[in-house]
Amino acid sequence: MFIRFITTGGTIDKIYFDALSQFEVGESQIEHILTDGLVNFDYEIASLFRKDSLELTDDDRLQLKETIENDDARHFVISHGTDTLVETAAVLNGIPDKTIVLTGALSPARFKTTDAVFNVGMAVAAAQMAEPGVYLAISGQIFEASKVRKNRDRNRFERI
Amino acid sequence: MFIRFITTGGTIDKIYFDALSQFEVGESQIEHILTDGLVNFDYEIASLFRKDSLELTDDDRLQLKETIENDDARHFVISHGTDTLVETAAVLNGIPDKTIVLTGALSPARFKTTDAVFNVGMAVAAAQMAEPGVYLAISGQIFEASKVRKNRDRNRFERI
Amino acid sequence: MFIRFITTGGTIDKIYFDALSQFEVGESQIEHILTDGLVNFDYEIASLFRKDSLELTDDDRLQLKETIENDDARHFVISHGTDTLVETAAVLNGIPDKTIVLTGALSPARFKTTDAVFNVGMAVAAAQMAEPGVYLAISGQIFEASKVRKNRDRNRFERI
Amino acid sequence: MFIRFITTGGTIDKIYFDALSQFEVGESQIEHILTDGLVNFDYEIASLFRKDSLELTDDDRLQLKETIENDDARHFVISHGTDTLVETAAVLNGIPDKTIVLTGALSPARFKTTDAVFNVGMAVAAAQMAEPGVYLAISGQIFEASKVRKNRDRNRFERI
Repeated sequence: MFIRFITTGGTIDKIYFDALSQFEVGESQIEHILTDGLVNFDYEIASLFRKDSLELTDDDRLQLKETIENDDARHFVISHGTDTLVETAAVLNGIPDKTIVLTGALSPARFKTTDAVFNVGMAVAAAQMAEPGVYLAISGQIFEASKVRKNRDRNRFERI
Repeated sequence: MFIRFITTGGTIDKIYFDALSQFEVGESQIEHILTDGLVNFDYEIASLFRKDSLELTDDDRLQLKETIENDDARHFVISHGTDTLVETAAVLNGIPDKTIVLTGALSPARFKTTDAVFNVGMAVAAAQMAEPGVYLAISGQIFEASKVRKNRDRNRFERI
Repeated sequence: MFIRFITTGGTIDKIYFDALSQFEVGESQIEHILTDGLVNFDYEIASLFRKDSLELTDDDRLQLKETIENDDARHFVISHGTDTLVETAAVLNGIPDKTIVLTGALSPARFKTTDAVFNVGMAVAAAQMAEPGVYLAISGQIFEASKVRKNRDRNRFERI
Repeated sequence: MFIRFITTGGTIDKIYFDALSQFEVGESQIEHILTDGLVNFDYEIASLFRKDSLELTDDDRLQLKETIENDDARHFVISHGTDTLVETAAVLNGIPDKTIVLTGALSPARFKTTDAVFNVGMAVAAAQMAEPGVYLAISGQIFEASKVRKNRDRNRFERI
């Protein structure tokens, strides 16, 4: 099995810069998560964007879609900010013959306490098990792309 | 969705006791992992054993099997030592109408660097997605119970 | 021995709020650090402010000074943002008969990789060993209050 | 300031080997602790032994003493198992003109929850502040070599 990882930014990769007293998207934590997870499958990681998902444009989403369509891989895990995870999933929906799982985190992977590792674990399992289609792996669940929303008040994803 | 977790011991729950300069099975880390993972589904955790999996007996495995059979739940995640994960999976194989995912860790969950969180994330995804049957979630993969072995020399699980 | 801890905010206590995509001062991490450090001495922790140190006013510093002067304790550890650590130390300098150690962190205590625990360890040692006076514990060193500056470009403290 | 670190093994450096279901002394964690601590002073780390401190012999202690005596450095931090920390300190006591701080941990540095980082922070502060002599940095305190014992039942060090 081969999984293509594509990183786009978001909370999962956020880092704190003391000099600026600011929190920005740093380099992707996916490699560290897979190494610590002792995974035994082939993969490659491509970094496409380093953005808060609120800053992702329609053009960015089309670029992500084309990147996936033009890639020979069948199994994809996309790391992404949570605020527009659902919007990006909608754009990707319809790509044929590929299993695409979007994931992210509500708390940065660099924190001692984070949902990032758990979420990437779920995404990796879903990418190898699910039928072709687009899925979200977050809040302890695997959602189909068109049947999920972020509940901002409760800071979690829910089935609709 | 409801998932029943059953813990049996193993490396995933190991803790170091300085007084004895020894490493023993401590209380289960599953609850902490699910809390940090910000999961949003119903679950209960039952502690059945606290053993190294090399110490699990045939009777223990039958007791685990009966516990699952007598439980109304349809989705199970079992945490277990890795040395006899495959043997226990073989005993559980054949239980009808239930999706049972065994997982564990090669490095204790209490370590800074551990595969435990990633593995439980995979197991939770598999427990909700897979057809009824028995599976292993470890080494970055979801294996069917009868098609996997532990490669001790390389400290990983492989498809057979 | 008794040590009085006073927390004022700063990077050491910063937490990330996903809802706001913002990083703010959260509740103090000192209690967790002392518990994990398995310390065996008497202490109490008072929370005075929850501010970035750039937001601390002259009035705040006077309030901190009076709090220390009116306290019976002889040994103090103050957690504080790093940007104005030196300025606050200057205001406290001159309080007689008390050993006062200011510390903080360049990376939040909630991060997997942080200097917070190391710095508080240094501060606790200095608070019990040093002559009455005001000190900084950071960048692996114990500085006297009037002989230190923050080098912002190199993100560290240096003797002057 | 220059600090010479000498590592001798002990719980602080313990690692878990799944293949053996055993816990052994691994490579020293001091370098990681100093790097994460963002220290800004000169140092070198020498690895002398990798032993449980119960396995250290009289010859080992003499070798440690000679190593220190023959070293030009004035400030030393020694990482060491806790079970015979007091015995080794007694052997080193009397070396003139050097500040020697022994430290260790009751919980391995590789654990998420450990006293190792806090203890090394205390030791580094003590090594630069204390008069020549031999000290222990553990249980949140700086002890003089001849005035401390390990209370095994309560798993902590106490002044005598």
